[in-house]
Amino acid sequence: MNTTVGEILSMVDGRLLRGDESAVLTNFAALDQADADCATFYGNEKYRDQLEKTRAGLVLVADERHEAPGARAVALVANPVIAFDLVVRAHGALPPAFVPGISPGAYVDPEAELDPATVSVGPNASVLRGARVGRGSRIGAGAVVAEGARVGEDCQIAPNVTVCHGCEVGDRVILHPGVVIGADGFGFEFEKGRHRKIEQLGIVKVGDDVEIGASSTIDRARFGETVIGEGTKIDNQVQIGHNCFIGRHCIIVAQTGISGSSRIGDYVVIAAQSGVAGHLTIADRVTLGGRSGVISSIDEPGGTYFGYPARPFKEERRDAMRVKQLGNLLKRVKDLETRLGDARD
Amino acid sequence: MNTTVGEILSMVDGRLLRGDESAVLTNFAALDQADADCATFYGNEKYRDQLEKTRAGLVLVADERHEAPGARAVALVANPVIAFDLVVRAHGALPPAFVPGISPGAYVDPEAELDPATVSVGPNASVLRGARVGRGSRIGAGAVVAEGARVGEDCQIAPNVTVCHGCEVGDRVILHPGVVIGADGFGFEFEKGRHRKIEQLGIVKVGDDVEIGASSTIDRARFGETVIGEGTKIDNQVQIGHNCFIGRHCIIVAQTGISGSSRIGDYVVIAAQSGVAGHLTIADRVTLGGRSGVISSIDEPGGTYFGYPARPFKEERRDAMRVKQLGNLLKRVKDLETRLGDARD
Amino acid sequence: MNTTVGEILSMVDGRLLRGDESAVLTNFAALDQADADCATFYGNEKYRDQLEKTRAGLVLVADERHEAPGARAVALVANPVIAFDLVVRAHGALPPAFVPGISPGAYVDPEAELDPATVSVGPNASVLRGARVGRGSRIGAGAVVAEGARVGEDCQIAPNVTVCHGCEVGDRVILHPGVVIGADGFGFEFEKGRHRKIEQLGIVKVGDDVEIGASSTIDRARFGETVIGEGTKIDNQVQIGHNCFIGRHCIIVAQTGISGSSRIGDYVVIAAQSGVAGHLTIADRVTLGGRSGVISSIDEPGGTYFGYPARPFKEERRDAMRVKQLGNLLKRVKDLETRLGDARD
Repeated sequence: MNTTVGEILSMVDGRLLRGDESAVLTNFAALDQADADCATFYGNEKYRDQLEKTRAGLVLVADERHEAPGARAVALVANPVIAFDLVVRAHGALPPAFVPGISPGAYVDPEAELDPATVSVGPNASVLRGARVGRGSRIGAGAVVAEGARVGEDCQIAPNVTVCHGCEVGDRVILHPGVVIGADGFGFEFEKGRHRKIEQLGIVKVGDDVEIGASSTIDRARFGETVIGEGTKIDNQVQIGHNCFIGRHCIIVAQTGISGSSRIGDYVVIAAQSGVAGHLTIADRVTLGGRSGVISSIDEPGGTYFGYPARPFKEERRDAMRVKQLGNLLKRVKDLETRLGDARD
Repeated sequence: MNTTVGEILSMVDGRLLRGDESAVLTNFAALDQADADCATFYGNEKYRDQLEKTRAGLVLVADERHEAPGARAVALVANPVIAFDLVVRAHGALPPAFVPGISPGAYVDPEAELDPATVSVGPNASVLRGARVGRGSRIGAGAVVAEGARVGEDCQIAPNVTVCHGCEVGDRVILHPGVVIGADGFGFEFEKGRHRKIEQLGIVKVGDDVEIGASSTIDRARFGETVIGEGTKIDNQVQIGHNCFIGRHCIIVAQTGISGSSRIGDYVVIAAQSGVAGHLTIADRVTLGGRSGVISSIDEPGGTYFGYPARPFKEERRDAMRVKQLGNLLKRVKDLETRLGDARD
Repeated sequence: MNTTVGEILSMVDGRLLRGDESAVLTNFAALDQADADCATFYGNEKYRDQLEKTRAGLVLVADERHEAPGARAVALVANPVIAFDLVVRAHGALPPAFVPGISPGAYVDPEAELDPATVSVGPNASVLRGARVGRGSRIGAGAVVAEGARVGEDCQIAPNVTVCHGCEVGDRVILHPGVVIGADGFGFEFEKGRHRKIEQLGIVKVGDDVEIGASSTIDRARFGETVIGEGTKIDNQVQIGHNCFIGRHCIIVAQTGISGSSRIGDYVVIAAQSGVAGHLTIADRVTLGGRSGVISSIDEPGGTYFGYPARPFKEERRDAMRVKQLGNLLKRVKDLETRLGDARD
């Protein structure tokens, strides 16, 4: 963006408390990241400390007493969160508008089912035989919805996504670029010195309101379904093995892998770079810390686990502490040896 | 699917031992995952325990004495494995049939070599100048076979795969969506405060019968070849660095990374999320446990390694045990201190 | 390649010191990887040891005294590095020549800005409305430059890359296949039992001379910018979260993840499979060892860190050593117990 403090104030109906109306702003950022050319806002008491330190070009506040000594300008608005949102929406990188129709260069098979009046298919996207796409959905440039796959309503299938044959995607699902839904599960039988492929004849079923991050991969089931439960949010570069059953409203952070046939409950939170071995169960509302490696089932709901192998947070922490204090223990043993030597003399 | 117990029995020539012929089944699953709406089968004595517990809608068994007390229906068939396979093939998500020809919207360069009578090129796929594709191979929608690359016979190159210029893919190779064969190796020289690119002029050579999972990346060699040996199976999101030499019939599980110039023997098994540092050698038939991190060569064939740095399984296990017992050791030392205090009094 | 020792010598103006001019060579490789059918070179004293051991078909050397007893042929040239480079360029997999123009099957929106006389757009690539591509840049087959995105001059945007709407890529940037620039950051608010999406309205800004490896993903900012600093090189399958600020001339090796809003200094080196938690700062010239997991800021420039949680290399090493010696410590405690028992008797 390229605007002035004054232009922002007139947009959000704000009153300048301090600073220069003609100062130019070129960006917006969070309180702790805003430089002198950035607009920002103070919307939550818990960031009071950041308000004191910010060097922003303009801070929107709700109270005259909210001083920001390091900022170049401070302005009063009714609701800083809403006001800032207005500014961002006026100047930010809004997602491109939805334009229904089939773009030049897109391929929609004659036997695919979609209504060009209500679906948007980008250039060089491919919707193959027997595929169905619901109204209000957008298929990005270069994306592929393969044979017999279904995409529900109001979905955003980003560029270069692949939804493989027969897989099912619910309503209001967001798949980011590079996502692969329904590649074959990794299954082989070792026979006469070679790995013979076990056919993977199931599908992936992605529930409503799921979001899956860039380059994540969800494998199809051996038979039956790999399931991603309604409302679950998956970050980038996550790998979900065949026949996994992921519950509803889970959060799975980047670069995590879940091996085949594991069942994850509802409201489970798995932090980044974690791993879950195959054929395990994780109970509802369990939280796994970053880089956890789960190698046995967690049956009790609601706990927090950590480490590899993952254990209750306190246990893991205690052992880590003890390792740190090994130097001290060593010294105590040495001391005992000396004293015992003395004692025996 | 949507079928009845009776319909399945007539398809597989089965005899109902118990249950209701008109019961509706909507899915199939493994013995331990089958719900009341699922057909399943009992094909191997080692799952006896699961047979006792299953709550499946229908279990196919080979012997009248194989009771499944929790199942809704049990039926006798000659060979449960074959019978179940029949059911799955009738109702499962079979891969789309091979249809030779160049789809609308595909680009095949006039200087590419492929026979449209025996090769299938999907919509919006690109086969560039000098590329060659062998008979029976399928190039998926949106896939790219770049300049001078070769794809052998009977390969399945899935949608949105990239085979970069000059790389060679053998016969019967399966590349899942998003795979990248032959991106540049990561090589730079630090010079006057900047990283100067070292040109990567080699290729990747993928052997016959290799399968590579979704979004895995195999880098081209600095010069010469990065090699994936015949029959090796690679899971999703695996990264193989430049000039690696991976042996034959290896298994490399998801999210593993192998750094540049390492040599992996034949029949090596590397479990998920492992890492191998650069310029190392791993002997034939070595197994690496999940999340192993190998930082020095393993010259002895056939062992099992674990941990980071990876060590023989027993050593790693023993140390992990000792850490767990640190609390106990601490107590013993404290006790000694007390007793020694007493002893000296 | 398929050439003879003699043909190579005439190309590089070399003199045969030992071996057969008519011997056939089919490949080239580094000194330690060259087989009997490979040409190689000896260009640096530090590989003296490899020179002694090499079994190459031909070694190019700069000095008659540089014997390679295991090689089949040795030849003298003025500068082995330059000579070998000549051979490799004559026979290697050179990147395809730059041919400006819009390929058949490519889609360039009428409202995109690019000069077909100076830009190359591959088959089935898509350059969407409002996108701009600078002169000398190449957009690979199947790549997508989305609405309003900017690609600078002399860039190489490989096949199947996605540059999302509004994102900005500098000059001389290389994006390898499958890279995703500008997918949404992973941000949700938990509200009434569901995760509500926080709109991600910022962009990604990739500096000049950046290289990003296959299938790496850089998320757009919540608002403002996710920044990749000038000259930074990122390997394959790296994940950079929203609002990260990566400095200039950094090296980030494969499968590393950096969580949202972290700030990485200049000349930072992060080895493979590392992780950095969110909202942290890492000072200039810090080095992180392979698989480091950083969970608190590193404020001091130039140090080397290791482990999870990452600590100064020496501390981490020392604790690892102490764990290895636990068996010994245990024995010493047992011994003390025995002796103290004796002492008290």
